[in-house]
Amino acid sequence: MGHPTNPGCSASLDASKLKITLSETLKPLQPIETLQFGKTFSDHMIVATYDPAVGWSAPEVKPYGPIALDPASSCFHYGGNAFEGLKAYLGPDGEARLFRPDLNMRRLERSCARLALPPIDGDAVLELVKRLVNIEKRWMPEESGYSLYIRPTIIATRPGLAVTASDHALLYILASPTGPYFPQGLEAVSLLAVSDNVRAWPGGTGSHKVAGNYSPGFLPQIAAAQQGYDQILWLFGEDRRITEAGAMNFFVVVKRDDGDGLDLITASLDGTILPGVTRASCLALAGDPEFQKETSLRLHPQEKLYTMSDLVKWSSEGKLLEALAIGTAVIVGPCNRIGYEGKDIVIPGNGLGPVGTALRKKILDIQEGRTNWQGWGVVCS
Amino acid sequence: MGHPTNPGCSASLDASKLKITLSETLKPLQPIETLQFGKTFSDHMIVATYDPAVGWSAPEVKPYGPIALDPASSCFHYGGNAFEGLKAYLGPDGEARLFRPDLNMRRLERSCARLALPPIDGDAVLELVKRLVNIEKRWMPEESGYSLYIRPTIIATRPGLAVTASDHALLYILASPTGPYFPQGLEAVSLLAVSDNVRAWPGGTGSHKVAGNYSPGFLPQIAAAQQGYDQILWLFGEDRRITEAGAMNFFVVVKRDDGDGLDLITASLDGTILPGVTRASCLALAGDPEFQKETSLRLHPQEKLYTMSDLVKWSSEGKLLEALAIGTAVIVGPCNRIGYEGKDIVIPGNGLGPVGTALRKKILDIQEGRTNWQGWGVVCS
Repeated sequence: MGHPTNPGCSASLDASKLKITLSETLKPLQPIETLQFGKTFSDHMIVATYDPAVGWSAPEVKPYGPIALDPASSCFHYGGNAFEGLKAYLGPDGEARLFRPDLNMRRLERSCARLALPPIDGDAVLELVKRLVNIEKRWMPEESGYSLYIRPTIIATRPGLAVTASDHALLYILASPTGPYFPQGLEAVSLLAVSDNVRAWPGGTGSHKVAGNYSPGFLPQIAAAQQGYDQILWLFGEDRRITEAGAMNFFVVVKRDDGDGLDLITASLDGTILPGVTRASCLALAGDPEFQKETSLRLHPQEKLYTMSDLVKWSSEGKLLEALAIGTAVIVGPCNRIGYEGKDIVIPGNGLGPVGTALRKKILDIQEGRTNWQGWGVVCS
Repeated sequence: MGHPTNPGCSASLDASKLKITLSETLKPLQPIETLQFGKTFSDHMIVATYDPAVGWSAPEVKPYGPIALDPASSCFHYGGNAFEGLKAYLGPDGEARLFRPDLNMRRLERSCARLALPPIDGDAVLELVKRLVNIEKRWMPEESGYSLYIRPTIIATRPGLAVTASDHALLYILASPTGPYFPQGLEAVSLLAVSDNVRAWPGGTGSHKVAGNYSPGFLPQIAAAQQGYDQILWLFGEDRRITEAGAMNFFVVVKRDDGDGLDLITASLDGTILPGVTRASCLALAGDPEFQKETSLRLHPQEKLYTMSDLVKWSSEGKLLEALAIGTAVIVGPCNRIGYEGKDIVIPGNGLGPVGTALRKKILDIQEGRTNWQGWGVVCS
């Protein structure tokens, strides 16, 4: 299992070789109401390095702290960095749980392959994630909506400026205690539909979780904020198809013409859409007879191309019932208006509607271990 | 001059505040024939940091060495990194010269703005580049074709995982002694025309020199190499328009129908093309009456949309005379064949034709200080 530019025999990442060097003094825990997303980090991190001569090093738990890199490292110049984001929740049984982490790990493997990074075994990364969660269990607040956000990161560390794939890499896993996305209760997000800036393109990297996808969105995001919108609704193409909202997937709930309940619509995975774990979970739940029975909702999940014209039409006909931003951080959040061509498409209601509420509740129940569902909650011990 | 997310009063980068901490022991110089691009670095680098509270720090010359960063730094996760590449050449007068560095500096300013990085004054960066070149003059080989490659780099150092613009940054400038792109003499490069992977798109970052543009090309590059081609010819759109070659601009020389000499054609700056300094210089030279007179070439520079169909047609009619890869590293290099739809378009001749040879010679003469031309050679002292 070697690197594409250097195939050969080299060591795979092996979680069983984990070395543990614990911090001598532990940080004080922070009052949970002061937690901001991704700002506070736990006492330790896990690191492992890939060298083409030997493969992956034995991973190591060590105190959280700066990493030292050659300034010519590929990650600074050519952007060969992939990451994942997943949350560990403390359940009523005292166990820490991850939510469908296998999906994150497969995506991490695909992201690394897309950037021609050294190959990585997602199952070994998952094992390391579980070890870190257990070591950092004191950082997991018991309160609902709080979790330990885990950020596995792989960066290209080939020291040199040649424009070529990196045959060196550094894996590290960070843990950050995190509160609810909406600390004041569910607040609706406003979106500005944007087509002059484009998040992703067929043949690009929009369906992978790689660093270069994100920073190009910051400038349009600032411009949207200046116009009074929270996030961008990214459009694509002449037909103004709807893709994502900020760094989240986007769904709408539309009343069906045949009277048979509601359509839950999101863009299909055409190469420009991040295959989100929460996205996949919402689609699966919506189509599940048991979930429909539990919630008395008749839902038709649909992954398809849909456009701003569709949205305008559904809105004017009174069929557009909910608009949802969906992702690991937000879980399921409401959108209340979409700015487009100088006007706002207003979403009825204030906050989550019945579909968003039901999806959010079910997912949070699974994540926090209050209910079992198809093996989605994975205990860390 | 504050950051877009944090406007206010903060210090600009000020080259006059440069602090100098020289290395106690200097590295031995390397035999020039063993130099590989971007692999050997000089004794020192220049660094400066941007903090939103105070602006840019006083820049510092210090020994080349690792940089220590918080693992949550934005550069690792969201790709907010911009850079430049320029070469300093030692002239027959003993002076070190840069080639049109103002163009690099304006581009660096634009790249930072595109990624919502803290604002940077390119003129101050240029002053620092000149200082570094003078300090590292012993690293500049006297031999023609050798130079000191300078890499100003700005990376996003905001410590935190929130998906937002970085209000912290690190500037560093590296110097790397570099030999000719083709150490064995001018070797022709073969290109594979690729349309399933896309380098850049309208509304993206293809016209900026940012890290995220590069790593997505590594996997297609490996696939092209496996098919026996050196680099990729990046196509775009249904019409298969020609954009760039690898990480270089691409030109063709085409015999005109009206018998009035030759067209020198390259893609226009439509937002998907890097505005290369060597690209701009070749276009300017080709249209210059003095250059035409010197070289007895009648040239019509043209920036326009042209497609693979055009190339196939020109080739079949015997009008496609030269194909050139153009950039700071290669200067002007020959392409000998272009793989497209299972066949090769063969470029006549072996190595550079008359136009490529004349452009290359003129640019190298200016760069190495053998001729003055419109202020393009800028002395560092």
